Amino acid sequence: MAKASQSQNTMETIVALCKRRGFIFPSSEIYGGYNGFFDYGPLGSEVKKNIKDAWWKDMVQRRDDIVGLDSTIIMHPDIWKASGHIDGFSDPMVDCKVSKLRYRADQLFFAPVIVAGETIGYVSVLEDKGMQADAEKQAEKLKRKLSKQGELAPIELKDYTQAKPEEYPLIPSPETGEPGSLTPPRDFNLMFETHVGALRDETSVAYLRPETAQGIFQNYKNIVDTGRVKIPFGIAQIGKAFRNEITPRNFIFRTREFEQMEMEYFIAPDDDQWQSVHQEWIEWCQNWLKSIGLPEELMGIDVHPQEKLAHYSRACTDITFQFPFGEQELWGIAARGNFDLTQHQEHSGKSMEIFDEARKEKYIPHVIEPALGVDRTFLALISAAYHEEDVEGETRTVLKFHPRIAPYKVAVLPLVKNKPELVEKAQVLYQKLQRRYNVFWDVSGAIGRRYRRQDEIGTPWCVTIDFDSLEDDTFTLRDRDTMEQKRIKEAELFALLDQQID
Amino acid sequence: MAKASQSQNTMETIVALCKRRGFIFPSSEIYGGYNGFFDYGPLGSEVKKNIKDAWWKDMVQRRDDIVGLDSTIIMHPDIWKASGHIDGFSDPMVDCKVSKLRYRADQLFFAPVIVAGETIGYVSVLEDKGMQADAEKQAEKLKRKLSKQGELAPIELKDYTQAKPEEYPLIPSPETGEPGSLTPPRDFNLMFETHVGALRDETSVAYLRPETAQGIFQNYKNIVDTGRVKIPFGIAQIGKAFRNEITPRNFIFRTREFEQMEMEYFIAPDDDQWQSVHQEWIEWCQNWLKSIGLPEELMGIDVHPQEKLAHYSRACTDITFQFPFGEQELWGIAARGNFDLTQHQEHSGKSMEIFDEARKEKYIPHVIEPALGVDRTFLALISAAYHEEDVEGETRTVLKFHPRIAPYKVAVLPLVKNKPELVEKAQVLYQKLQRRYNVFWDVSGAIGRRYRRQDEIGTPWCVTIDFDSLEDDTFTLRDRDTMEQKRIKEAELFALLDQQID
Repeated sequence: MAKASQSQNTMETIVALCKRRGFIFPSSEIYGGYNGFFDYGPLGSEVKKNIKDAWWKDMVQRRDDIVGLDSTIIMHPDIWKASGHIDGFSDPMVDCKVSKLRYRADQLFFAPVIVAGETIGYVSVLEDKGMQADAEKQAEKLKRKLSKQGELAPIELKDYTQAKPEEYPLIPSPETGEPGSLTPPRDFNLMFETHVGALRDETSVAYLRPETAQGIFQNYKNIVDTGRVKIPFGIAQIGKAFRNEITPRNFIFRTREFEQMEMEYFIAPDDDQWQSVHQEWIEWCQNWLKSIGLPEELMGIDVHPQEKLAHYSRACTDITFQFPFGEQELWGIAARGNFDLTQHQEHSGKSMEIFDEARKEKYIPHVIEPALGVDRTFLALISAAYHEEDVEGETRTVLKFHPRIAPYKVAVLPLVKNKPELVEKAQVLYQKLQRRYNVFWDVSGAIGRRYRRQDEIGTPWCVTIDFDSLEDDTFTLRDRDTMEQKRIKEAELFALLDQQID
Repeated sequence: MAKASQSQNTMETIVALCKRRGFIFPSSEIYGGYNGFFDYGPLGSEVKKNIKDAWWKDMVQRRDDIVGLDSTIIMHPDIWKASGHIDGFSDPMVDCKVSKLRYRADQLFFAPVIVAGETIGYVSVLEDKGMQADAEKQAEKLKRKLSKQGELAPIELKDYTQAKPEEYPLIPSPETGEPGSLTPPRDFNLMFETHVGALRDETSVAYLRPETAQGIFQNYKNIVDTGRVKIPFGIAQIGKAFRNEITPRNFIFRTREFEQMEMEYFIAPDDDQWQSVHQEWIEWCQNWLKSIGLPEELMGIDVHPQEKLAHYSRACTDITFQFPFGEQELWGIAARGNFDLTQHQEHSGKSMEIFDEARKEKYIPHVIEPALGVDRTFLALISAAYHEEDVEGETRTVLKFHPRIAPYKVAVLPLVKNKPELVEKAQVLYQKLQRRYNVFWDVSGAIGRRYRRQDEIGTPWCVTIDFDSLEDDTFTLRDRDTMEQKRIKEAELFALLDQQID
């Protein structure tokens, strides 16, 4: 419990910093907020853009085998029929009729309380690290309340989707603690629905895409026909997706509106080659995360067991991250076979075959799909970057963002603001830097305090223009992480930036 | 009529090029398309990103008085109540009960046909350059059909919103040519509706934003409270917006899903200053469009007359562009007073006042709002860039994109592909360029044909690595617009790119 409570603190600290320094605000806060929606403020929108730009540059522009796409959020509804989302993209939901609260059935756990072989009642808890201990405490309490004697059997938690119909009325609501108010679980489709055109009937129903991937599959044929792609090749896309989550939670980790970076890599349907391509992509993704500053020791691997895969799926591996609230999926790399293209071929009547020049054969390619959330990446990066350090008896808060990710690359600080020639010299440098980089200008306050402000928003370097600068054209370069200072010439500064940021 | 048909051809040419070279595809084309939705392909997604990046860089990163924002598409529904969109964001719509076609009432024109002072019937036409001539032809035909003698009075077209109720049954449907099937006009709200949460009733209704501006206003207070902004300052945002247009048309000019680049510039509520700020922004916007390659001679200015402004609006000026289908609004620069912030203060109960340090007074600031569509900018840029030139008896198709906008900046072309040392040298240069720019690699085909391929997709420069390159480390630089070639060293190439791009 100590650990969970510590994590809770870190999460609260990060949420508070995000608000205080303009990284992230709850959407519609002046109207009381809107559950599951968050806005990126002045600093957050820069970080988010940096994440997307770095991914696009490394995934699309620097690779010869991958092209980009930017498809619409609302598409022809038949696409979601073909992909299986209309029939199957749902979560099991359970309502408490008394408290009016709603839970995901697979996040609500319950167990019978068995004393001396007799079931004396049920306990329920919400999914959490401490839920087992919590359920055991509740069971002890129930035993005492009912004055039962004898040995309490071990509490074996199952989630609500595994409850038998006769158990529904016996399981207490997590909110009220009383049984009798929980409904049976029912499937709840997570796609947001709307109507396109002036009519509002079933012919006009449309959906907000719950993933960007289908936009890639529905454009695959046009790209094959008009691009100069040949197997293996990929199509990459960044864009918004929407899921009507029953219980949005963990800040920007699970929201109802989010942004994805997905890529479909089309390969020959060989039985022996897909594993190595899959493995290459897992490694590429790990390396990419490291390259933008995610520490290796906070990352893990979760290989989905065969029996939990969808029928068409050959493998799925998640790169996980130690978020403050626990280890969770960050980047899923799936080997999806040729399920999606085959479904679209069937539903659209258009051939999805490609002619493989090298092999002189035609086939529907298989895909490897690395799918990453921008918002989750943001949360992982800021969690990893957050540090509190004791410096000369004071706490220094510092965001150790990679230079590619930091909202500002450099802060330009004239030592004093009442020396025009000093401020002017600083402005010349500032404007030169600003042509290429996002840079910060700050003239007010003691220099130490100005450094701290930049530490807290993750600016990797501060450049101070002082009286010596007027003499010898050097500046003081102060490093965020080491706090070391050294004299540097303008050309050296630009070379450093060019090397560290790209 | 000749001119209209010529424009039509140009539009068709551009649409065809967009499809053929992977700039833009109709959404969901394998399912027969989806009216009002378009996807950006491999080249289009790069151009679109370049437009957005250029705007963000110039509007946000290079200005000290403007900060960025990235807010959600779905927000608290009360925002749209406050902004007036729930009550007033609608177009008048009319249905033809026979053909089931639907028209915007203000795009459907009609006139009585009066012969020798007697009204013998009505004609109707859809808004178009040739509609007057068309209506006159129809009137002559009706006169002949009914064998009427006497003088035909001049045909005076009005739009359907101006029809009197007794005229509705007399006006023919543009589709069938027969009267009696058109409904009275009714207001049709253009916001897409959905439901957030598991309930589907009026408490859960939400909207897809029809503009990004309200996301700025609802975050204004958080930005003022947490940023270090002071009047005058701006908040800028790029993002998707959605309007359920009755008649999407003109390719990507009027679509149902589109992307906006909006900025709200907050100023003191002086009666004498807003005009000059408004004028400054009009000029800034004109200059920006010129800076990304839009020819001045294709731009115009449309000042909205006072009597057509909304009650709260002080002025609105559009920068127009000569699209192939006519002169249309490209960038609207509105002086909106303090209407939006006042409305949000009233509806949310939160104060929207800011303390002006310089004046030592508190007020709700007024705004100047430059609002530009990414897709319209794309269409303007590609229309202006498109050229067909006669070169040595052949037609050269060339997109004269500004280097900041072009999808690829440079194409690297080894003269022949069967000389390993030549290909290798080209690869070294290619990879150096690729670190910073989006570049194209092409080894196949005659060099002249490779140049033409790059012309058609707008690549400003081609670099050819030939046998001399192996000797003296120079390359042939070929300019897209002049087709001139010269020898250049690597350092010169990088200096050229650095100067011309961003």
